[in-house]
Amino acid sequence: MLIVQKYGGTSVGSTERINAVADRVVRTYAAGHSCAVVVSAMGHSTDELLDLAKGVAGDSNSRELDALLATGEQVTTALLAMAIGVRGVRAMSFTGWQAGIATEPMHGAARISEISAASVRELLAQGGIPVIAGFQGIANGHVTTLGRGGSDTTAVAMASTLAADLCEIYTDVDGVYTADPRYVANARKLSVISYEEMLELANLGSQVLHPRAVETAKRQGVHLVVRSSFSDEEGTVIRTMGTMEELRVVTGLASEREVARIALVGMPMGEHHLAAVFSALAAQQVNVDVIVQSVVRDNEVDVSFTVQEADVERAIRTCEGLAQTVAYKQLLHETGLSKISIVGAGMISNPGVAAQMFSALEEAGADVKMVSTSEIKVSCVIGGSHLKAAQESVHRSFELDALT
Amino acid sequence: MLIVQKYGGTSVGSTERINAVADRVVRTYAAGHSCAVVVSAMGHSTDELLDLAKGVAGDSNSRELDALLATGEQVTTALLAMAIGVRGVRAMSFTGWQAGIATEPMHGAARISEISAASVRELLAQGGIPVIAGFQGIANGHVTTLGRGGSDTTAVAMASTLAADLCEIYTDVDGVYTADPRYVANARKLSVISYEEMLELANLGSQVLHPRAVETAKRQGVHLVVRSSFSDEEGTVIRTMGTMEELRVVTGLASEREVARIALVGMPMGEHHLAAVFSALAAQQVNVDVIVQSVVRDNEVDVSFTVQEADVERAIRTCEGLAQTVAYKQLLHETGLSKISIVGAGMISNPGVAAQMFSALEEAGADVKMVSTSEIKVSCVIGGSHLKAAQESVHRSFELDALT
Repeated sequence: MLIVQKYGGTSVGSTERINAVADRVVRTYAAGHSCAVVVSAMGHSTDELLDLAKGVAGDSNSRELDALLATGEQVTTALLAMAIGVRGVRAMSFTGWQAGIATEPMHGAARISEISAASVRELLAQGGIPVIAGFQGIANGHVTTLGRGGSDTTAVAMASTLAADLCEIYTDVDGVYTADPRYVANARKLSVISYEEMLELANLGSQVLHPRAVETAKRQGVHLVVRSSFSDEEGTVIRTMGTMEELRVVTGLASEREVARIALVGMPMGEHHLAAVFSALAAQQVNVDVIVQSVVRDNEVDVSFTVQEADVERAIRTCEGLAQTVAYKQLLHETGLSKISIVGAGMISNPGVAAQMFSALEEAGADVKMVSTSEIKVSCVIGGSHLKAAQESVHRSFELDALT
Repeated sequence: MLIVQKYGGTSVGSTERINAVADRVVRTYAAGHSCAVVVSAMGHSTDELLDLAKGVAGDSNSRELDALLATGEQVTTALLAMAIGVRGVRAMSFTGWQAGIATEPMHGAARISEISAASVRELLAQGGIPVIAGFQGIANGHVTTLGRGGSDTTAVAMASTLAADLCEIYTDVDGVYTADPRYVANARKLSVISYEEMLELANLGSQVLHPRAVETAKRQGVHLVVRSSFSDEEGTVIRTMGTMEELRVVTGLASEREVARIALVGMPMGEHHLAAVFSALAAQQVNVDVIVQSVVRDNEVDVSFTVQEADVERAIRTCEGLAQTVAYKQLLHETGLSKISIVGAGMISNPGVAAQMFSALEEAGADVKMVSTSEIKVSCVIGGSHLKAAQESVHRSFELDALT
């Protein structure tokens, strides 16, 4: 098999960890597989580089920030190639440009446009192990970076380019769980999950795998496994689920803390106020999550939306700045909220899932303040103090502790 | 004028220092000059990267060591380009490959074979400031490094390629002195020195400028200035000296501590023993400095040579290993020695310089244990305890304190 393995920052956080990763890569190789490795920067090295950039007031210079940050992954590739070499297997480091990873000509959050990988293929053909810098590429001779989730995306795109049989994402957790094990004692590790469910869970802040990488894997048909570099536990396979019967109604639950709700009350109908509000928030880099518009009453409409608590001041200032143009009657806000969501591809064909969730939340004493649904997801905003009880109640209600 | 400025590790050792360097670059630019900058890695960052390589037992993997170490200079280029940009002047970082610096296909100590510099020229033509990583290049798509003195060499080679009017080497001393000011109170800064004299002084361990860079500058006719990035003092100009009259008999003195002498006594004549001994030492990476062969007596010959004290054990072991093939009668060694040298291009046409040096050493109570001379240099090995007195005596004798 040709396997692409990706190791994240914690997995390569020290030379001890890099030696452990080299052991694992060599074991895979010794088992008769071809192997290409994609790595992140070591532990906190990206933060240290960012601090240096701040020291010269240069952290808004996106071209140079990319040139600076790209050194982080380069360091890991060289060290891991050394460590594999010491174990008697030929390995070679590749920067983004050396691996032929071309991106759009933009900095900070470029998308991969094409991977040529000629030298990578050549080394694989000779039985060597390419160790490739994640997160980076090249555009018109300039170094670019891929932004958040970049290394996961590099691994998936490289697996697709090389037509790899498998792409293993090594991280510090041993798979995808039905709920966050830190909060739900009975959380179970899933052995398999569909791309769609993983995508919803990833978007919901289950930080195992970046949604961008899941999307790419789904589009390119890359077989993904999420597993731990700290143990030999089997991970979670992410793949296309065969039949409707295979699909679980609810696969897992995800939650988010420090959520704030803002409401614009009493806006006159039909004046494109929604576009005005959310364009202004986007221009101020406020990430809006759930948006709910109330039913019309007296020719007026209320809109409420959630943001992260860290963004709430900025969101309020932005809305205040719109008071002239949008003409709402009241601006309300509430902090200390949480969001709890259930995800399951089988939900589509199962009515009553949302109702069952509301009951479970009610049993936990949590008032539902906002609701948002997609075909395979139900999200509810509740008071933060009820989150733990709500997680347990929902987990129990959908019998997630019985899943395998 | 087009000026290439090179800043060494101490000059860019922190973000404060990088900001100070940016101020200086922008002052040069504001004075109406075009400017290209070459930088080293920040302070001790190269040592930190080497420690990481040791942590994975990979410091003998020369390809990956180059890939690793090259990140050090890349970090500085990005930070300095940011800092210059913040000051309102356009700047852009260049790695070795981005600047088109091609080297021989070897790692660790590659020589520059060609610089294309197309993008560097383009930026200069647009009035921007290229900030180029010293010490690194590219060969067949692999990152290479230039070894010791590499950044100085990059600066000189880039100045030659761009046909710059001047190449300024910024360091932590403010020029070239007649002697080391730490040891000789009356040491004077030289305003000008010839390439040849600088070359001898550089080879003698006056660590202002690497001999390789001086050689390149001499060959390519690059005008060099050595000066401090910590002050506005005028530095020392290194250039071709016009006439013989201009040449000083003695320009400066240099010295080296922790020298050891090894002697192989009583070797039979005519058996190629010299080649055998020094090939074996070279193979063991022992750097041999002064070599003296005695006059022949009873068909036997004695050879003595100096090494750094750190290498003395290795040198002795190597010589002991040769006892069968070389057949010397005795292996002697002595540590705690020093070497003192005088350099001056005018020496060629002035007899009696060596004699005057011996007298000065005698006055200081220093026995001369070995002598080595070139056309513009006299070196003497003496007991280390006499070095300070010897330096002062020689400095006074040649009236170096009267030089300007």
